[in-house]
Amino acid sequence: MLEPIDPSFADILSAASRIAPYIRQTPVLSDDGRFPGLVFKCENLQAVGAFKARGACNAVFSLSDAAARGGVVTHSSGNHAAALARAARLRGIPAHIVMPRGAPAIKRAAVEEWGGHVTVCEPTLASREETAAALCSQTGGVLVHPYDDPAVIAGQGSALLEMASTMEPPDVVLVPVGGGGLLAGTSLAAHHRWPGVRVVGVEPSGADDAARSWSSGVLQPQLAPNTIADGLRGALSARTLRMAQAYVDDIVTVSEGAIVSAMRLIFDRLKMVVEPSGAVPLAAVLEGRVTGARMALILTGGNVDLGQLPWTR
Amino acid sequence: MLEPIDPSFADILSAASRIAPYIRQTPVLSDDGRFPGLVFKCENLQAVGAFKARGACNAVFSLSDAAARGGVVTHSSGNHAAALARAARLRGIPAHIVMPRGAPAIKRAAVEEWGGHVTVCEPTLASREETAAALCSQTGGVLVHPYDDPAVIAGQGSALLEMASTMEPPDVVLVPVGGGGLLAGTSLAAHHRWPGVRVVGVEPSGADDAARSWSSGVLQPQLAPNTIADGLRGALSARTLRMAQAYVDDIVTVSEGAIVSAMRLIFDRLKMVVEPSGAVPLAAVLEGRVTGARMALILTGGNVDLGQLPWTR
Repeated sequence: MLEPIDPSFADILSAASRIAPYIRQTPVLSDDGRFPGLVFKCENLQAVGAFKARGACNAVFSLSDAAARGGVVTHSSGNHAAALARAARLRGIPAHIVMPRGAPAIKRAAVEEWGGHVTVCEPTLASREETAAALCSQTGGVLVHPYDDPAVIAGQGSALLEMASTMEPPDVVLVPVGGGGLLAGTSLAAHHRWPGVRVVGVEPSGADDAARSWSSGVLQPQLAPNTIADGLRGALSARTLRMAQAYVDDIVTVSEGAIVSAMRLIFDRLKMVVEPSGAVPLAAVLEGRVTGARMALILTGGNVDLGQLPWTR
Repeated sequence: MLEPIDPSFADILSAASRIAPYIRQTPVLSDDGRFPGLVFKCENLQAVGAFKARGACNAVFSLSDAAARGGVVTHSSGNHAAALARAARLRGIPAHIVMPRGAPAIKRAAVEEWGGHVTVCEPTLASREETAAALCSQTGGVLVHPYDDPAVIAGQGSALLEMASTMEPPDVVLVPVGGGGLLAGTSLAAHHRWPGVRVVGVEPSGADDAARSWSSGVLQPQLAPNTIADGLRGALSARTLRMAQAYVDDIVTVSEGAIVSAMRLIFDRLKMVVEPSGAVPLAAVLEGRVTGARMALILTGGNVDLGQLPWTR
């Protein structure tokens, strides 16, 4: 069913042991008074404040010494950029991060905090890809794509293994979907570790390429994403779509209003800082898009501008 | 050294097992990259969003059936009010909460969410105490003071027992001080469970009665508290002062600016929602008022108005 270039469950198991020294086992929390039947996997408490630390560490620590020598390169203005810079520093190799002109200063600072080298490009996909390719040639660095990379996907799948070792199987696992790396890794891991548990992707209705691609079976572009969930504006790749079609039970969409409501509930009731992208699974529950007696939600990240929370604007 | 009415270490052990079904074992988190040497006990993730759930449950579940029949009464506009309402509901008895006119609507809502009955009084200590005494007479309810109560103090001490069972002893434990219930319980527990570990109380310099009382040995009033840390505006009682003098190594004060900085760091870096009162231990570290290679900080609560965060005003 999978192409040879897709990660296997064995790759997820290997990833989990490879990255164990470099990531946190994040807590699984619940509040049966406030959120009956819901369990939250707190990847907002992960290193760099997002699950992306998993995939980035697996990609960086999978490289041979020879391959690692030139460092790593990526194009990202989000959590993957900081995660890759951190992983590279832990391995002692350089990280070159291509960011579009106009990316928030806070995102650049997060990369530089970990010693990453930032190269600014034009804010188009073509410019990002060309600039990254040029950097790879110049530096001998290895490109680590934010999600279209087997090692990254295998690393992201390790969060599900941790959940399976600390809680009983729920009826359903809800996963935010941007490029689909976390969804691909989680659904593959669940297929083997929690057979029978449904895995549902959740994305903003203003960036619904994954739902359209998944239901049609044909990769759909994400032309003009319009959502507060900045981590979910990317589009699936052929690989993440293929894996989602193999292992995912449904992909649902949520409104912007529900995302903000869910985010505030997580702050207010769970006492957790979560970014809009991490609140979409709870938004799906609030809107009744997914139901189940016991549901596990991945709180994917907590990197949000605290001076500009959506309910204080 | 202690009066017979002061709680003993055995009372803390009993409290811990008595309240175990009703409270959460909260996680202990650290981030050696961002906060080297610091460990945080996350009582902001406790039921009702504050450690007060511990003492309130211990007080309520210590009552005989006969004593419990009339319910419980307290005067508080803070976390103890919600915690007592919740504990009473869990036991199936009424809770009567006296709140001063002008208390924030959000605090009243937290009590009513748990089925507590609110009685409004004038915003003076005399009116609070008279109203509570009158309610006790009318209802046959038992007064459960927010901190000047042996069962409440014993319950608060259970957080230290949890810390001792999940981490190595630090050099010092930092505890916010308002009325001193948590400080009394924590320092007594540490004296027995972690002998040699220093226990330091931290309070805002704008509400420094505890520091003045502790160093002079004479109970000082808290005349005009002026601090954003609304949970720390109370004054020690004779009992909590006596216990602090027996078991606490120091009480230090912190500035308002450091409290806000610490609060924002906890949101930003630990991804935790914390109220100003819960941020004072980190404020003491930021200001260099307490030092140690390994320090444990109690994040006491997370109940804050998210529409009015101090850095967005």
